[in-house]
Amino acid sequence: MPGIIDAYRSFLPVTDKTPALSLHEGGTPLIHSPKLSRELGIELHFKFEGLNPTGSFKDRGMVMAVAKAAEDGATSVICASTGNTSAAAAAYAARMDMKCYVLIPDGRISLGKLAQAVMYGAKIIAIDGNFDKALDLVREIAVSEGIALVNSVNPYRLEGQKTAAFEVVDTLGKAPDILCLPVGNAGNISAYWKGFREYRSHGKIDTLPRMWGIQAAGAAPLARGLARVDEPETLATAIRIGAPASAILARQAVNESAGLFDMVTDDEILEAYRKIARDGVFCEPASAAPIAGLMKLHAAGKLPAGAQVVAVLTGNGLKDPNIALQAVNVEPVQARADLDSVLSALR
Amino acid sequence: MPGIIDAYRSFLPVTDKTPALSLHEGGTPLIHSPKLSRELGIELHFKFEGLNPTGSFKDRGMVMAVAKAAEDGATSVICASTGNTSAAAAAYAARMDMKCYVLIPDGRISLGKLAQAVMYGAKIIAIDGNFDKALDLVREIAVSEGIALVNSVNPYRLEGQKTAAFEVVDTLGKAPDILCLPVGNAGNISAYWKGFREYRSHGKIDTLPRMWGIQAAGAAPLARGLARVDEPETLATAIRIGAPASAILARQAVNESAGLFDMVTDDEILEAYRKIARDGVFCEPASAAPIAGLMKLHAAGKLPAGAQVVAVLTGNGLKDPNIALQAVNVEPVQARADLDSVLSALR
Repeated sequence: MPGIIDAYRSFLPVTDKTPALSLHEGGTPLIHSPKLSRELGIELHFKFEGLNPTGSFKDRGMVMAVAKAAEDGATSVICASTGNTSAAAAAYAARMDMKCYVLIPDGRISLGKLAQAVMYGAKIIAIDGNFDKALDLVREIAVSEGIALVNSVNPYRLEGQKTAAFEVVDTLGKAPDILCLPVGNAGNISAYWKGFREYRSHGKIDTLPRMWGIQAAGAAPLARGLARVDEPETLATAIRIGAPASAILARQAVNESAGLFDMVTDDEILEAYRKIARDGVFCEPASAAPIAGLMKLHAAGKLPAGAQVVAVLTGNGLKDPNIALQAVNVEPVQARADLDSVLSALR
Repeated sequence: MPGIIDAYRSFLPVTDKTPALSLHEGGTPLIHSPKLSRELGIELHFKFEGLNPTGSFKDRGMVMAVAKAAEDGATSVICASTGNTSAAAAAYAARMDMKCYVLIPDGRISLGKLAQAVMYGAKIIAIDGNFDKALDLVREIAVSEGIALVNSVNPYRLEGQKTAAFEVVDTLGKAPDILCLPVGNAGNISAYWKGFREYRSHGKIDTLPRMWGIQAAGAAPLARGLARVDEPETLATAIRIGAPASAILARQAVNESAGLFDMVTDDEILEAYRKIARDGVFCEPASAAPIAGLMKLHAAGKLPAGAQVVAVLTGNGLKDPNIALQAVNVEPVQARADLDSVLSALR
């Protein structure tokens, strides 16, 4: 996989002057889920976006946004981030020798994500406010300081992200019946929908999937039909967003596809998170939201038997190891370094 | 990428009865390193094995070892591990509904790796001894309890791992001049060498690379010409091994290829670790050892100008976020959530 700009050049707004930026993002696997398929009575695949270069789907959009910023002469980029965006922005900016500024909600970013942004050389500013406030601030600063804004309000982000829909189709040979994914800032559901529609208009598919967007109950404006939630709260920090920037596009995706929004509690997210790992895939808590949603809708009799479902696991579990250790809450058994001690620990 | 068993079936000891086990391991990118290439006067690519499903190169060998264990009727697997092996063993065992037992050196395993093994459902026993002692114990237990041993003394592990050499050749269209990688238990250098030789005997390449194995100075029996180091010590926990199980094969690889062993200090590893990140790739500390080695050999005038070099980055930086935060030692700047505060923090 050469990276998404090369792989899908004819579908992207690139020119001869767009730099050949790539960390070989994209080309992530579609992993069959045997245990959950059985439990839910469907054919379930995970689109495991945690295997992108910085460990989340954000790399797809960020390679486009940073390449276009460079093409336009920018020398620095800025974003607000719950973590994944900052890691991606910092990595691609480093690659282009651009400066990267990141505003994060103080105290609510996972250890792994912070480590990434720091290592890639971003300047990180923690504010005493939530993501929505951070996004308001970077929008102002981008204009006043002439810095390229690379949050998903930057339209190149969604252009890059839509390539994940292309890959799902390229792998399955058709669109799935249902595409189910976590919804925070609502950019990704909008991007997938755009990708599927473009593939249909190019004759690559005949049918479109239903778009199912799952939010965390504490941060669920779209599922609740609200304009915003003022104090979003969930352990799935990647979707702890109260005022989704792409709300309008996301509602269109759900309406046009006869899809749905739903929401799941943190406990339901953690249960799904553990089940996904038992199929051999370790994702971050936000990525478990769509599986929690499928489990809830299955219990309510709303999941069509035998449906082909792709659930997007947006980020790598290694981004947030502390949640895993809390969720499973198992300390290693201690033993002396001799055979008898180890054998009794084993049993 | 369908997984290594499917992709390289004719080169692997698989039969009709080998289960079709896969988490889509392999197919990892060869990422060009612009800044380090310039600094070292070579053409440098990273083989970024951190993008395997559990975040390290261990997945390649483990898919083979677990599939063959299942084929032979085993219902459980056991390994000693500094972390990456346990994550891989636990993930593939979960996938096959097999039990997984892991012995880890107490207190010396990274947070991310422990979180993975726990999430995938392994039973973890921490012993008050180092890796070498843990390996001695699991060898005994495997025999006495009839559990499949999946450490790299299991020959299927190296068979799977050799596929990384195939991929390097398949991508470059030839063998590189130098293949440089970290050496701990010494299985990987042996596996790459086996892979290159097999590709030559099948006529896929004419020349073989020089094999350069880099150890951490505190755990460097091969670089020092010793049989073992009794108290191995390095912050690069993945290669903190004093008695490499594959020492004989590794010495053969270096001798036959006119290669070398060398060693680097923890400070040199951390410097390389930061430089790799500035090329947009976040690897684990052990993975930085080969780059530290290249920097050292360049300074000594031993790195041929213009050589095509592939450095194997064995694991994902997200496995060990605490080291990153210690290494770079930057706390986010704190700011109030208003424009003036953020702008002054930015400057």
